[in-house]
Amino acid sequence: MNRKKIVTLGGGTGSYMLLNGLKEYSYDLTAIVTMADDGGSTGVLRDELGVLPPGDIRQCLVALSDSSVIMRDLMTYRFEKGDLKGHSFGNLLLSALEKITGNFSTGVEEAIKILNVKGDVLPISEDDMRLEIILQDGTILNGEKELDDNQDIRKKCIKDVKLSKEVIANKKAIKAIFDADYIIIGPGDHYGSILPNLLVKQISESIKKSDALVFFVSPLTNKMGHSDGYDMLDYVTRIEKYIGKNRVDNVFYNSKIPNKKVLIQYEEKEGPNSFVLCDEKSTEFKKRKFKVVKGDYLQNKSIDKKFSDSIAHTRSFIRHDSHKIAHAISFTINNDDNKLNSIEII
Amino acid sequence: MNRKKIVTLGGGTGSYMLLNGLKEYSYDLTAIVTMADDGGSTGVLRDELGVLPPGDIRQCLVALSDSSVIMRDLMTYRFEKGDLKGHSFGNLLLSALEKITGNFSTGVEEAIKILNVKGDVLPISEDDMRLEIILQDGTILNGEKELDDNQDIRKKCIKDVKLSKEVIANKKAIKAIFDADYIIIGPGDHYGSILPNLLVKQISESIKKSDALVFFVSPLTNKMGHSDGYDMLDYVTRIEKYIGKNRVDNVFYNSKIPNKKVLIQYEEKEGPNSFVLCDEKSTEFKKRKFKVVKGDYLQNKSIDKKFSDSIAHTRSFIRHDSHKIAHAISFTINNDDNKLNSIEII
Repeated sequence: MNRKKIVTLGGGTGSYMLLNGLKEYSYDLTAIVTMADDGGSTGVLRDELGVLPPGDIRQCLVALSDSSVIMRDLMTYRFEKGDLKGHSFGNLLLSALEKITGNFSTGVEEAIKILNVKGDVLPISEDDMRLEIILQDGTILNGEKELDDNQDIRKKCIKDVKLSKEVIANKKAIKAIFDADYIIIGPGDHYGSILPNLLVKQISESIKKSDALVFFVSPLTNKMGHSDGYDMLDYVTRIEKYIGKNRVDNVFYNSKIPNKKVLIQYEEKEGPNSFVLCDEKSTEFKKRKFKVVKGDYLQNKSIDKKFSDSIAHTRSFIRHDSHKIAHAISFTINNDDNKLNSIEII
Repeated sequence: MNRKKIVTLGGGTGSYMLLNGLKEYSYDLTAIVTMADDGGSTGVLRDELGVLPPGDIRQCLVALSDSSVIMRDLMTYRFEKGDLKGHSFGNLLLSALEKITGNFSTGVEEAIKILNVKGDVLPISEDDMRLEIILQDGTILNGEKELDDNQDIRKKCIKDVKLSKEVIANKKAIKAIFDADYIIIGPGDHYGSILPNLLVKQISESIKKSDALVFFVSPLTNKMGHSDGYDMLDYVTRIEKYIGKNRVDNVFYNSKIPNKKVLIQYEEKEGPNSFVLCDEKSTEFKKRKFKVVKGDYLQNKSIDKKFSDSIAHTRSFIRHDSHKIAHAISFTINNDDNKLNSIEII
């Protein structure tokens, strides 16, 4: 039997989490990764060395790597002092490989060999891709890093994002989309990790035309100034703006409410209704065609300090659990012909 | 038949050249490497991250690595811009591994696995090892980097070198010396790569006591202020000061005079008699017990630009040839019972 082909679309911690879970199953995995990051170690390398952004690619490589523990530790190690402070060793590896091979994609292919990566990891584009953030008052912010750094966003709120100029998609990514049985969008930061992929026109057009089922992993929480009060339907609508109405086939929605203390902490930081809700009884919901795969997808265990320092930066304390979400996806794939409108994963 | 055990003692380009040639033969190779370097990328990492010096170790790892070309290219790649400018990727790898494993030697062991190194590479000590350079006028210069950087040396001349404080030798290095069939000292910069090893008392004492035959690869040229007008015998005498009189069994001496143009260029830079001579007819020479293995050990081919940029920095344009010197060593080992006082390699 041929292995099912899954393409994931995203970047950052979300893709790391998802791939880390999916690699335990025998799928043929291809991660398509946003190249719009320009913050942190990645941003410095981009500016100073003129390389493409390695950070998101690195996280996917580590997730799918079958190399030694030490090699994985190396990839996520950050230097703590001097001029190298903050640089992730894995980012330096990717940047050096880009310089040596003369090409980012070829560098990534070499990294795949070095790290014994099971699957494929593809930059969405080889062009210099930059995000523009348009606020409700018309202000334009340049660069994805502003999403995290610019406190104005919390007051002025994001209206939209676009690319500073159109980019050409990686041909291999387009081929992977057309070859795929399943395309999984998310989870990940809506403006930072999800939309930058869909803003690449050839990519969203390919998803629109491909025969693959489209799965969307809904975010768990909203961010102040980004997605205040969004419910799950709002996210799906915003995704479908790019890939076509009713193109999403299944939405993986976490229905487990986090414990109250954590929720309060979160709302203090990100505002009211920061936990993403889903009203299945609403008229709007009933009009939609996608199937909801509900379940408890929350990570219970406290976050590993070392892990969070290096990869995930404890950006959020309400998180998806790798294994739970991968289990739900696998269950859904195995019950492809299920006619129910909603699946509940126990 | 058991493979012959060879221990090399040195550092820098000399060790790289020697190991690169010897690895083509079926010897059991252990490179013991000086840890006194504190210049360039290595010096910055030492100062800023508080790590042990990776540069010389890196060169030996690359020489003995059986990994892909790209992995070897990576190890010698130097960043060209920004805060990372001048840093060798291989040095960053070793420093990150030291930080992750908590120990330089363990880090080197991991690098040996990653790079599929055929043989062993041992730092001579895990202590913070610093060189003091004493000039003829009594001036003391601190740090090995002064050998290259301080122009005073060219006028005032080196009288002696010592370690700023005694260091404890790596036990594995001592064991390797006692287990060895052959110990090869050099080639390499006399004060920068050779003596720092012999200044580690436990190392020179171990060489003195071991049953191994000691081979010394004589330098090709002298350096102004360092070794003005030295002949081969002067070098042997200075080595034997540490390991005992008549402890050197064979000296590999290049008897091929470089072409005149190169020689003139060299003398313009390093002063008269900068090509190391050997007067076999002198009374002093006749008193000595070592066997001279003479031959043409010069590298003919023009130096590969890429190679020289990354590893050897075109420090010198009169160089040993890896294969010629390895052939001479192998020939000598195979003719161990040769009773001649002098061997001439054709």
